[in-house]
Amino acid sequence: MKVLVINAGSSSLKYQLIDMTDESVLAKGNCERIGIDGHIGHKTSDGRAVERDVSFPTHKEAFMEVVDVLTKGEGKVIDDMSEIAAVGHRVLHGSEKYKTSTVITDEVIDDIMAFRELGPLHNPPQAIAMRACQEVFGKDTPMVGVFDTSFHQTMPPKAYMFGVPYEYYEKYSIRRYGFHGTSHRYVSAQYFKVTGKAKEGSKLIVCHLGNGSSITAVKDGKVLDTSMGLTPLDGFIMGTRCGGIDPSVVTYIANKEGKTPDEMSTLMNKKSGFLGISGVSSDCRDLQKAASEGNERARLALDMFVYQIRKFIGGYAAAMGGLDAIAFTGGIGENDSEIRYDICKDMEFLGLEVCKERCKEVSRHDAKFSTDSSEVEAWVLPTNEEIMIARDTVELISK
Amino acid sequence: MKVLVINAGSSSLKYQLIDMTDESVLAKGNCERIGIDGHIGHKTSDGRAVERDVSFPTHKEAFMEVVDVLTKGEGKVIDDMSEIAAVGHRVLHGSEKYKTSTVITDEVIDDIMAFRELGPLHNPPQAIAMRACQEVFGKDTPMVGVFDTSFHQTMPPKAYMFGVPYEYYEKYSIRRYGFHGTSHRYVSAQYFKVTGKAKEGSKLIVCHLGNGSSITAVKDGKVLDTSMGLTPLDGFIMGTRCGGIDPSVVTYIANKEGKTPDEMSTLMNKKSGFLGISGVSSDCRDLQKAASEGNERARLALDMFVYQIRKFIGGYAAAMGGLDAIAFTGGIGENDSEIRYDICKDMEFLGLEVCKERCKEVSRHDAKFSTDSSEVEAWVLPTNEEIMIARDTVELISK
Repeated sequence: MKVLVINAGSSSLKYQLIDMTDESVLAKGNCERIGIDGHIGHKTSDGRAVERDVSFPTHKEAFMEVVDVLTKGEGKVIDDMSEIAAVGHRVLHGSEKYKTSTVITDEVIDDIMAFRELGPLHNPPQAIAMRACQEVFGKDTPMVGVFDTSFHQTMPPKAYMFGVPYEYYEKYSIRRYGFHGTSHRYVSAQYFKVTGKAKEGSKLIVCHLGNGSSITAVKDGKVLDTSMGLTPLDGFIMGTRCGGIDPSVVTYIANKEGKTPDEMSTLMNKKSGFLGISGVSSDCRDLQKAASEGNERARLALDMFVYQIRKFIGGYAAAMGGLDAIAFTGGIGENDSEIRYDICKDMEFLGLEVCKERCKEVSRHDAKFSTDSSEVEAWVLPTNEEIMIARDTVELISK
Repeated sequence: MKVLVINAGSSSLKYQLIDMTDESVLAKGNCERIGIDGHIGHKTSDGRAVERDVSFPTHKEAFMEVVDVLTKGEGKVIDDMSEIAAVGHRVLHGSEKYKTSTVITDEVIDDIMAFRELGPLHNPPQAIAMRACQEVFGKDTPMVGVFDTSFHQTMPPKAYMFGVPYEYYEKYSIRRYGFHGTSHRYVSAQYFKVTGKAKEGSKLIVCHLGNGSSITAVKDGKVLDTSMGLTPLDGFIMGTRCGGIDPSVVTYIANKEGKTPDEMSTLMNKKSGFLGISGVSSDCRDLQKAASEGNERARLALDMFVYQIRKFIGGYAAAMGGLDAIAFTGGIGENDSEIRYDICKDMEFLGLEVCKERCKEVSRHDAKFSTDSSEVEAWVLPTNEEIMIARDTVELISK
């Protein structure tokens, strides 16, 4: 069975075609500049590549091009689109309604659009892409929505409620939702798979560290708490996001600079974090280079990142009443052994002891880098959100 | 030597007269409704009380009344105001300039007034009260300013910087300052005194829990981190304050409700926390009563309080690389054994084991409530900010 996995943005459409007999990726690519002009970049698993400009007035034309490139010419991997058994869509925000992945119906698409206030940049294009997908594939091809928020729906109220008046939860659904849920779910499932440990009684912390980052406390295999909140802004500093700050900083800067809420939102989401602190870059590698050349603000941004993550790890250990393992994933989590080591060192009080050499050797593959005698394990477990979406899709359409 | 300790608000003037030969409080009281009409409530250590309406057009008349009540009539404890060797003033915000307590000069008063943007409700009346005090006591009576922020000035940049663009630190001094510093300093000093432990190498967490609450990580006797930030809003939920929340909640509510930054500030400082979540009260005892009668939102507010504090404790243990002791102080910290126990239980992973019976028995006195075999100690150490202000005053004027 072959599943097409879709991750739609307002002007982009990323896709992977996965053969579920062995979970191999047959081809993947990205339709860019939808609504502007249009370009597709496509790669097959056997090394063929297609790059071409195509007119994408809407997501519909992009889907037509995906079908075209998969079935014809240089990028061809299947004979006919009927070979695609189902389409799995990544969805940012499922609010409190979608606690698990769901077969997409018209009602579900309407809901996803209705949640646009909670996910203004992602939910509308994702709903639009689903309608376009229906037009191209026809309503007989089943579609499944996999929500970034759903894995986090097991959080108890004490973890998901904010300290503002309760009426805002009732009126506007303001609460902690959490994101990267599909990644946290994949990595925690992978942890149980590679270690053979039981979910019941387990206490795991998953650190998804990349340009956007979040940390999740997974107790008994279920989310107890996560660092992102109402939006993906909360938590700790990221590439361009400020993470958690004294909320009075928001009103203070807004007053001083005469900024509107939307301008403050842009400032905190796009101009803060690594970029705002360092003035150098939003990329961790650029900061490390600058810091090694003596740039103090780049050093500070890295120090804040590590320090704030350490506090989350300690905080979540306390929330769970202990800790079995920490798993690292995402661009930084999988590849940056220096950051990983700095986060984990001097954590002997938690029962965690990491090996610097092992930490350095691990990259982009499942591996443990804690010492053999460490009570708490430290793992690198590369994430794979697409395979999780494909698995959910197969499971739901097989019911 | 006798020291008068002053804690001035915009319409109030609290005072204590302390005999520093044995640190006993001779008398204390409060001048209220300054600038409105005026009332003084005064008590002596031997049980006499004075309550009377007096006209307080400004803080100057209040100071004159303090001198009057201390030297004459029913509330008299000294013969002449010349017996007051010095006056110690509580000051909310010392910005980055005042890292320790300071003898007050005209320049210092000007600075305190200049920091009004960082402490708008407290710094102006405190500066005004100092000038009034000079007028009444004359410039020969030395005065000392003791800042709520100064104990926290040892924080490293990774702990005090927020993830917003660096320019706001440069332009507006936006950073974490921390408050309740005099209380955290008193309690940590008391911890070293009662346990006889060395500062060097020590890892202590002080929980000041009251209507306003903050937690401080004290490493080697110096502050490494603290929960309050630019203002006393940050941290965890308090009586009417929201504590730390996703900063996007601020812009989200502001947009939805058309609120200005000042209105948002009022919402987050005055209508949130216990009051906002429960809809019942800002007082912890009222919530406990309501929760015991089945009020779920009151239960939720208490659960959030305990849960968020536990995360701070774990986070600060990770920040320090371990933990020797937790000390509780403030109205809730000293008196509420139920909250204290809920915060400390299931923390065996940190080496902390508390005794429920001991925890229940401790109230308003220095006492340990961890078990004898617990690696990490838990203490109740009642705070005394006034004695700390008086001690600093004596030390500085004796130089």
